[in-house]
Amino acid sequence: MNRVHNFGAGPAALPLEALQEAQAEFLDYKGSGMSILEASHRGKEYDAVHHEAMANVKELLGLGDDWKVLFVGGGASLQFAMLPMNLLHGDRSADYVVTGHWSEGAVKEAKIQGVKYSIAATTKEENGGFTRIPKQAELKLDPNAAYVHITTNNTIYGTEWQYTPDTGKVPIAADMSSDFLSRPIEVAKYGMIYAGAQKNLGPAGVTVVALRDALLEQCRTDIPTMLRYRTHAEKESLYNTPPVFAIYLSNLCLRWLKKNGGLPAMEKVNKAKGEVLYGAIDSSGGFYRGPVAKDSRSLMNVVFRLPSEELEAKFIAEGKKAGIVGVKGHRSVGGIRLSTYNAVSLDAVKAVVSFMDEFKRTNG
Amino acid sequence: MNRVHNFGAGPAALPLEALQEAQAEFLDYKGSGMSILEASHRGKEYDAVHHEAMANVKELLGLGDDWKVLFVGGGASLQFAMLPMNLLHGDRSADYVVTGHWSEGAVKEAKIQGVKYSIAATTKEENGGFTRIPKQAELKLDPNAAYVHITTNNTIYGTEWQYTPDTGKVPIAADMSSDFLSRPIEVAKYGMIYAGAQKNLGPAGVTVVALRDALLEQCRTDIPTMLRYRTHAEKESLYNTPPVFAIYLSNLCLRWLKKNGGLPAMEKVNKAKGEVLYGAIDSSGGFYRGPVAKDSRSLMNVVFRLPSEELEAKFIAEGKKAGIVGVKGHRSVGGIRLSTYNAVSLDAVKAVVSFMDEFKRTNG
Repeated sequence: MNRVHNFGAGPAALPLEALQEAQAEFLDYKGSGMSILEASHRGKEYDAVHHEAMANVKELLGLGDDWKVLFVGGGASLQFAMLPMNLLHGDRSADYVVTGHWSEGAVKEAKIQGVKYSIAATTKEENGGFTRIPKQAELKLDPNAAYVHITTNNTIYGTEWQYTPDTGKVPIAADMSSDFLSRPIEVAKYGMIYAGAQKNLGPAGVTVVALRDALLEQCRTDIPTMLRYRTHAEKESLYNTPPVFAIYLSNLCLRWLKKNGGLPAMEKVNKAKGEVLYGAIDSSGGFYRGPVAKDSRSLMNVVFRLPSEELEAKFIAEGKKAGIVGVKGHRSVGGIRLSTYNAVSLDAVKAVVSFMDEFKRTNG
Repeated sequence: MNRVHNFGAGPAALPLEALQEAQAEFLDYKGSGMSILEASHRGKEYDAVHHEAMANVKELLGLGDDWKVLFVGGGASLQFAMLPMNLLHGDRSADYVVTGHWSEGAVKEAKIQGVKYSIAATTKEENGGFTRIPKQAELKLDPNAAYVHITTNNTIYGTEWQYTPDTGKVPIAADMSSDFLSRPIEVAKYGMIYAGAQKNLGPAGVTVVALRDALLEQCRTDIPTMLRYRTHAEKESLYNTPPVFAIYLSNLCLRWLKKNGGLPAMEKVNKAKGEVLYGAIDSSGGFYRGPVAKDSRSLMNVVFRLPSEELEAKFIAEGKKAGIVGVKGHRSVGGIRLSTYNAVSLDAVKAVVSFMDEFKRTNG
């Protein structure tokens, strides 16, 4: 087995230990004589997995008893639509902070539905676009909003909220897809959190939605059954057949997170990874140039440019030969992007930094 | 490895060969140095899987170039809502044939949306409910309907359409979740086919939707992006991250289907399995009693009762000891249900029939 260093933005590297466990029991789950993929979603084997995964998400994030954890299909993109569909009825409006492509996507779905919303802030039109997170003072917040929507980490632009905004009595609804479970969060400020699994949790195919009861009670009950948060909450995400394998493997990753110290430990490692990587960029004498404002740098997606597109192409090609893959920047912005989610080890980051140093020495 | 005979209704038995292949390459997909679960959905490895799976569905069903195959999350239950949401705009109405719990679910979602529909037939109120499929002459069809919705196989009640209704110029929209790819179909009569994977195709987590271009062109473009069939069709189900693993493993199952002769061969084996099983019921002298009309018997879910609920409980318990599992009837109807999807071999069916004969001998 010759595993590469995978810096892909998602689907992304998974903990080897979790993959090995899934592989070992793939044909015969815990002596049941069948794969977990073949087990009824109403049977005791899967039921234990399902509820353990929910409990693990709650425990790791520190969510109280007034929160529900749901597993939904369709990706975070479906949540862009479900959130306003459920919560923005009647006269209710929401605030959206626009910090990149995915927050724009969330706004677009509110617009399609013709509901009321405001843009609380955007950094689109400055400095080439989306190179920083707005400061608290820049947020134009409506004290009567149903929620304030933020994207905590912006995969394409390499920015991340390094503070949790103060939104008064209005709950934050956060798309945490790309930094989910990477650091402790200030739960009290949030009302709703969602995350596609395939970046920082597990494989593609399931989206985790955590919702406070107070918000759940405001949700509509006259929309299609599968699009109601209440359906998933009341049936504990077993209204219909859930994406069994994605939840099962996510749970193995959740166990791995707990075993390795939970979110405080993850934050520590992620900060160490960021120091090494941003250190290499900052000390490269301008060979590697990061476009992101220092107070908005992401610990999940580290983006930078080289002196020319030719050198970037060479960096990608030589990286691949050295077993360093998934480093190409998003097609909309170019450059290099190193995604360093929880499952990417400090050693992998040190390996890419050695490669960067050597590449600069021979091409600088 | 001690694999059981799994007669579960879904998630259900999968071809061992497909599981073994997935297991073997689970940590290092074709020398890429990573699991297919860790590969970008925009990379060449996954892209090949994705498009091969689409092509295999088209080839097996015999769909022409005027069809699109989509992979959608959320299960068939989400399709209950998406179908009318996309197609029943303006004055358009649809006909629904109600043959069980899932067709009722489809009707419920049309009703929630306040669109126009008619019930073309139902067998709910006779003979204890849903024990047969309506005959052609019983269908009250609107020649101007946008579609006629049918559920080709009813998992709970053990009924299956043994003919394809003549709906004139109106296309059939069919929920084929539980007999998908189990037999050749009369493609010309259909406009839309959908199936949750977890019964007859692959693991839970993806729903296959096949849609004729003529219907696609009638679909709304002003509904949430992820709920538009057009979005998935235009982006070849890569608008956002698809459920990678469910599609990958389904494709291994599709390859297995092709290698084993495709749908004509599946139909032959499924008929042979049905003959053996229904033969055992019919020749049991009333010990095993099937409630379903003979012209409506399902080849996918064979349901029957024993002389008492005590004997049914004993049948289930002793079956389990003999490595025969997943045989309990749906909680809403009770009794025994043997699901005999494509991946359940004739040998497995012969094993359960031996068990049934022996059980009758000692308990009859």
